[in-house]
Amino acid sequence: MQEIKKYVEANKDRFLDELFALLRFPSVSADPKYKNDVLNAADFVAEKLREAGAENVEVCKTAGYPVVYGEKTVDASKPTVLVYGHYDVQPPDPLELWKTPPFEPTIRDGKIYARGACDDKGQFYMHVKAFELMMKTNSLPCNIKFMIEGEEEVGSDNLATFVQQNKEKLKADVILISDTSMLSMENPSLETGLRGLSYLEVEVTGPSRDLHSGVYGGAVANPITILSKMIASFHDENNHITIPGFYDDVIELTDEEKHALNEAPFNIDEYKKDLQIKEIWGEKGYSTLERTGTRPTLELNGIWGGYIGEGAKTVLPSKASAKISMRLVPNQSSAKITELFTKHFESIAPPYVKVKVTPHHGGEPVVTPTSSAAFRAAEKAIEESFGKKPIPTRGGGSIPIVALFEKELGIKTVLMGFGLDSDALHSPNEKYDIYNYYKGIETIPLFYKYFTALS
Amino acid sequence: MQEIKKYVEANKDRFLDELFALLRFPSVSADPKYKNDVLNAADFVAEKLREAGAENVEVCKTAGYPVVYGEKTVDASKPTVLVYGHYDVQPPDPLELWKTPPFEPTIRDGKIYARGACDDKGQFYMHVKAFELMMKTNSLPCNIKFMIEGEEEVGSDNLATFVQQNKEKLKADVILISDTSMLSMENPSLETGLRGLSYLEVEVTGPSRDLHSGVYGGAVANPITILSKMIASFHDENNHITIPGFYDDVIELTDEEKHALNEAPFNIDEYKKDLQIKEIWGEKGYSTLERTGTRPTLELNGIWGGYIGEGAKTVLPSKASAKISMRLVPNQSSAKITELFTKHFESIAPPYVKVKVTPHHGGEPVVTPTSSAAFRAAEKAIEESFGKKPIPTRGGGSIPIVALFEKELGIKTVLMGFGLDSDALHSPNEKYDIYNYYKGIETIPLFYKYFTALS
Repeated sequence: MQEIKKYVEANKDRFLDELFALLRFPSVSADPKYKNDVLNAADFVAEKLREAGAENVEVCKTAGYPVVYGEKTVDASKPTVLVYGHYDVQPPDPLELWKTPPFEPTIRDGKIYARGACDDKGQFYMHVKAFELMMKTNSLPCNIKFMIEGEEEVGSDNLATFVQQNKEKLKADVILISDTSMLSMENPSLETGLRGLSYLEVEVTGPSRDLHSGVYGGAVANPITILSKMIASFHDENNHITIPGFYDDVIELTDEEKHALNEAPFNIDEYKKDLQIKEIWGEKGYSTLERTGTRPTLELNGIWGGYIGEGAKTVLPSKASAKISMRLVPNQSSAKITELFTKHFESIAPPYVKVKVTPHHGGEPVVTPTSSAAFRAAEKAIEESFGKKPIPTRGGGSIPIVALFEKELGIKTVLMGFGLDSDALHSPNEKYDIYNYYKGIETIPLFYKYFTALS
Repeated sequence: MQEIKKYVEANKDRFLDELFALLRFPSVSADPKYKNDVLNAADFVAEKLREAGAENVEVCKTAGYPVVYGEKTVDASKPTVLVYGHYDVQPPDPLELWKTPPFEPTIRDGKIYARGACDDKGQFYMHVKAFELMMKTNSLPCNIKFMIEGEEEVGSDNLATFVQQNKEKLKADVILISDTSMLSMENPSLETGLRGLSYLEVEVTGPSRDLHSGVYGGAVANPITILSKMIASFHDENNHITIPGFYDDVIELTDEEKHALNEAPFNIDEYKKDLQIKEIWGEKGYSTLERTGTRPTLELNGIWGGYIGEGAKTVLPSKASAKISMRLVPNQSSAKITELFTKHFESIAPPYVKVKVTPHHGGEPVVTPTSSAAFRAAEKAIEESFGKKPIPTRGGGSIPIVALFEKELGIKTVLMGFGLDSDALHSPNEKYDIYNYYKGIETIPLFYKYFTALS
């Protein structure tokens, strides 16, 4: 541990400079206009893996953005850890809400502010630096492989094919991912599950052209009004989702599981204060931790229709659209939920309008085993570096690829995240504490030590 | 009539060229980026009034866009007609739906396609050319004044002050406006009323920042979902508006009035075919003509919130907004309805969100008398030029300024419109038939003849 701390201390400025260089690439995978920046970010990652001592480093072409691969084999008889991360980021908008530019990393009271600071550049780059540390200090106890992709924020559409075509290359004993959160630095935690995702776009069309709201208003269905009524019907008075069959495959937690889950330190007043809301919201009969960790949800991610420019336009629009995503829990299927939603949306559309549903992407939910050598190694590593045993939690987010790894490669995953829910992932002013960044780099080598020992 | 036709025939190409020049100004009053174009349009109108023979032509400054004034006094003992129109236009978006550029007028099968072709450049400019005709043929039988404003599409905010400050200058016996529609060229009609307007913008705020929909989804109210539920509640199952007191001041039509109104030729199948809708929509117990002509309405003109860009973003947004306008019928008050809406919107907001209501602009409804000399003159003029007596109709649109003229100047208005509902006012591909343009220029001098005779 002392040697680790010494190396980090000696290189801390460079570690930060390199992360800043990575954060300066606006690698937004959702928006084609950033294509070159995404590609440049991939090259940068490959270069840094080489410098750290990785072999067979490749920027692997896919039908979309490339996967950066690198490896180091110390002893074929030793176990192999496959590190997964993503160099792409969420779109930065609404830009006007950023205090400093999203792609010009800035430090304010010990925190790095930038899009991707936590999700996932700041987190996966800790692994690159921890790898460098183990290489330079001759302390890498087992084999390591890196698979850093560029399409996580748009559903990892092409990673499935990549994984199917490279099963040999990706052979490993465990997948290690830092793309999730801890409860807090005082209450370190390890996530034991992730929600699945079904993301769609809907379009409601009324009249074939925009109309004068005075001449036609009151006599022709307004697609915004109709879409609003349809959206309003998605949740009943108890905030249960009304799509027939939506909950069919959901497995209720046992009382023990519920109890354990709600043991996690959680302060509702701090939660409300952080979000500046008077009241929380959610499905009746479940706590906030249960709602985000163990229940499927349906959220509106965007809505638009009619005139949204300056001033006033008295138009009755032809179309209204929305982006909708559903988070799924273990045993639900993304494909099935997408189909149920589509059928339901079409069935509740009134005769005044035409509707169109376009699926964007999906992913399956996962539960990670807490009994495995890898999970126990992660627990011990965190306990040693934080001085406290991590609390097992259920994450609300989705990393669709985790379920795919299990299916295609038969490898389980350990989610050793060092972020915080308050890091404003996907929001303006995303941040990552410098403390967490260095803490992660110090903790990761301990995971390799214990995983090799326990395997 | 022959002399009129002769003059129009001899000058028809120039009449069209001049209108095209006027249509090329993108005089969008709602969007500050068009400021200079709006001002240039005003200068153009003033110039053309001078050329036509108007005296004391002025581009009168206001707190906003100027009012173009011009006059011609032939004999102080004769009556005076005040012509009102507006040189500003609606925003052209959505631009991608225009077949040809909105500010490059194009003729397709006898129709002029351009923003403002009908509303109101094509219509008020007929009066400028009819005035030129009467001047050049020494047939102007009474006095005339022009008041062409540049803020009609944004609520004529500064015209009220202008009118209050220029009561003497604007003294007249009747106001003549061509900014409305006829049923068809085969069924000429005259509008006898206009609806009022109350236009507002609402904003719903949930959490203080955009959130990750996986980490917070299901546990924090989504402002898009909440706004949708609020919008959905505005109309009950019979499409009655649910705002308490909304209908209190509405005067139901008598059976005779209802009967007369529904006498107007109207083909529901053509109506549906034109709009490409399977079913019409509206308040239970009223016909389409009653819904648009005699009932107050509430329409969503625009909605936006969350991520509306390319691809997918799993965000639970902080805010959602909408632009909403209500059309009012005689005896309703714009100020009162705005207040009722605001109170109601605030009262139905759930504790999870904060709401803000911002009034944009309003206008009072009007009914024009059908017994006046001016109305009868308009009837006779149309009958002579169309060979058919016009049908009295109730228009669904609003020209807020008409009520103001009556209040401030004590002058009644005649709405002699030559447009068609199918001219796509406020929509992409707005048009005006060349036939209607010339027909209007020919009809207007007859109005002056009969009005002077009947006064």
